[in-house]
Amino acid sequence: MEKTFALRGDICYSKARDCIECIEDSWLVCEQGINQGVFKQLPDKYQGVKVYDYRRHIITPGLVDLHVHAPQYSFRALNMDMELIEWLNTNTFPEEAKYVDLEYAKRAYELFVRDLSIGATTRAAVFATLHVESTEILMDLLEESGIRAVVGKVNMDRNSPDNLREASAVRSEADTRRWLESVLGKYQHVAPILTPRFIPSCTDELMARLANIQREYHLPVQSHLSENPGEIRWVEELCPDTNCYGEAYDKYGLFGGDCPTIMAHCVYPSQMEIALMKERGVFIAHCPQSNTNLSSGIAPIRTYLDNHMPVGLGSDVAGGFMTSIFRAMADAIQVSKLRWRLVDDSLKPLTVDEAFYLGTKGGGAFFGKVGSFEKGYEFDALVLDDSNLSHPQQLSVKQRLERLIYLSDDRNIIGKFIFGKKI
Amino acid sequence: MEKTFALRGDICYSKARDCIECIEDSWLVCEQGINQGVFKQLPDKYQGVKVYDYRRHIITPGLVDLHVHAPQYSFRALNMDMELIEWLNTNTFPEEAKYVDLEYAKRAYELFVRDLSIGATTRAAVFATLHVESTEILMDLLEESGIRAVVGKVNMDRNSPDNLREASAVRSEADTRRWLESVLGKYQHVAPILTPRFIPSCTDELMARLANIQREYHLPVQSHLSENPGEIRWVEELCPDTNCYGEAYDKYGLFGGDCPTIMAHCVYPSQMEIALMKERGVFIAHCPQSNTNLSSGIAPIRTYLDNHMPVGLGSDVAGGFMTSIFRAMADAIQVSKLRWRLVDDSLKPLTVDEAFYLGTKGGGAFFGKVGSFEKGYEFDALVLDDSNLSHPQQLSVKQRLERLIYLSDDRNIIGKFIFGKKI
Repeated sequence: MEKTFALRGDICYSKARDCIECIEDSWLVCEQGINQGVFKQLPDKYQGVKVYDYRRHIITPGLVDLHVHAPQYSFRALNMDMELIEWLNTNTFPEEAKYVDLEYAKRAYELFVRDLSIGATTRAAVFATLHVESTEILMDLLEESGIRAVVGKVNMDRNSPDNLREASAVRSEADTRRWLESVLGKYQHVAPILTPRFIPSCTDELMARLANIQREYHLPVQSHLSENPGEIRWVEELCPDTNCYGEAYDKYGLFGGDCPTIMAHCVYPSQMEIALMKERGVFIAHCPQSNTNLSSGIAPIRTYLDNHMPVGLGSDVAGGFMTSIFRAMADAIQVSKLRWRLVDDSLKPLTVDEAFYLGTKGGGAFFGKVGSFEKGYEFDALVLDDSNLSHPQQLSVKQRLERLIYLSDDRNIIGKFIFGKKI
Repeated sequence: MEKTFALRGDICYSKARDCIECIEDSWLVCEQGINQGVFKQLPDKYQGVKVYDYRRHIITPGLVDLHVHAPQYSFRALNMDMELIEWLNTNTFPEEAKYVDLEYAKRAYELFVRDLSIGATTRAAVFATLHVESTEILMDLLEESGIRAVVGKVNMDRNSPDNLREASAVRSEADTRRWLESVLGKYQHVAPILTPRFIPSCTDELMARLANIQREYHLPVQSHLSENPGEIRWVEELCPDTNCYGEAYDKYGLFGGDCPTIMAHCVYPSQMEIALMKERGVFIAHCPQSNTNLSSGIAPIRTYLDNHMPVGLGSDVAGGFMTSIFRAMADAIQVSKLRWRLVDDSLKPLTVDEAFYLGTKGGGAFFGKVGSFEKGYEFDALVLDDSNLSHPQQLSVKQRLERLIYLSDDRNIIGKFIFGKKI
């Protein structure tokens, strides 16, 4: 890592939830992986440091994917004409079962990590499968790529086929401990996260055992919450003693509080669930593309933002068909407009500024001071060449960023830095 | 044009509305611009003709964009956080007024036509602006590109700013006749289409004069219909003597029947409007991305299909931010799922097969026998290289096509033929 260096270009970042700051031809300075601020001129004390000259290009914080299933990348954009539970049984479980085969896992995970590497994502919260060894292969590959990620070996001991179900809660716990002993401290950029698949896949006994592991290792947790009406009814049947889906995690202490937690989807929260998520500081991973593809619905993100709850974006591959978080920003805006029109016109659609916040600083907060160019933030940056997005008129830096959100793909990414390291 | 030639590759086309036919490693034969059918082996009578060997690539019919505004391409993906009428006044009208400047028009239209040329579109129904000369520049550029298009000089004589409003119905008629005299018979691939912008922009007198022109020249017509709730209320006020928006066109004979007509959007049709559209054979241009971006709503496409009404897809740039009709297919599926979930679960979501039909044969029917590889269809074809869409498992040709619909961009297009001519 170069200890101190500077980037020069057209700089964009979220100053606040509803405000993108755009500063033409300015400087960023990175020292030891930490951003020193945005400067109109390179300060005297940094004269002589290495400079990356990206004038006329746009520089943004790296993008954060708060929810993605690595083993599902193989069947992205296939066979999505069904709802969640049928889709899990038809596509997901048979595919994930293949990851017992380490050669298949390696081949598939290499494709996933290569895509993530050439894309805009710099941080990710990743689901693997229940298999310990192939999960470690995925973690090895992510470590090599430089992407900072939390990765979860999945826990699931009920309601799935024999070839994708842990034999018992005891076995699931034992495998999880074996995995943790192997990976803890092994990586610079990658860390484990506890990953009960979702309530229908986890017995009470398994949840209790995972709770013990969580307290012992102080691990963060990721799972799914209130994605689909049929799923929610199923959880009500499975957990007759809880008042909402979230409580089924909370009663084991796996729902925020001292246990940093990401819950994906949160499409149909009850008032009680919203209050509980807020009290516990649960991160919401909004996955608009997946919620559309699986006909789940549209999450009330404006409600979460108005309640000052932490929200980021997830690609949710392969419920989503693309890993792009720029695409997730566009999707988040689009579905919020349809929700305003079709469901509840008291919740105004998300703006470009808000969607950009969600995909950078909003999700980044799960990883610490991540997702902004304010002083003291970890130095994750993208350099974007928008010269292929032709236009006959003058455009401001903000307008060019808006276009990149809607129209860019990996061709536009010409530089990527993660925690001060050029990838 | 090569008079007779063959393509070899993995061939996909719509056999019926709900059925994509996929035939691995097969042959297409083109004679004089007309497809002779799909063959597992090259028939003896064609031995010796020029062969384009596209083995391992996917070959589909060219895509049809039934609704696109060429002058709005310049501001695609910008400033979409508003509804239709505000968006027209804020973005569209000021930009379209610039096309009085022929140099600006040329520069802007060159960018639009270049994008269309490198994309998957082979046929398009295009709005220009009210300006005669710049409309002709656009037609010249499209003619050069080889894309087959109908192009409309827009008519509008009310409810728009002074710099984008024709001074009177008489003047609008005179300009339209001047334009027609100049362009009729001038082109091989491009033809004029009568284009009253929409009812709020056109006085009764103008509509009556356009009706005369339509009958004199037997021109097709394109316009907008029932896009936005506020717009529909406005039309009710403007046309108190009509029972539905469509009738405001129909009473001048500009709504199907002997006058081939495309109506864009049709998001909120009344029962009466559906019946009238069906009776008149009006083509519906479904523009899901635009209807989302402008918070308009979601059109009931399943209703139109069940009624055997003609439907195709439109990019509606710049209500839509991309000219890609593959993207429009994906968007059509996605919004139909949200409509099923949020509005009316009696209308099943569109399938991949149906969306592909809409973007090829469905819209193609407006141009004649276009959009399929059945014998006798005009020979429009795309050759798609999907090798960058990596996967660890075996995929069928149909699955590869499904991926291309969701994930492809112009990089995947390695060959394009329009009416038997290689572009």
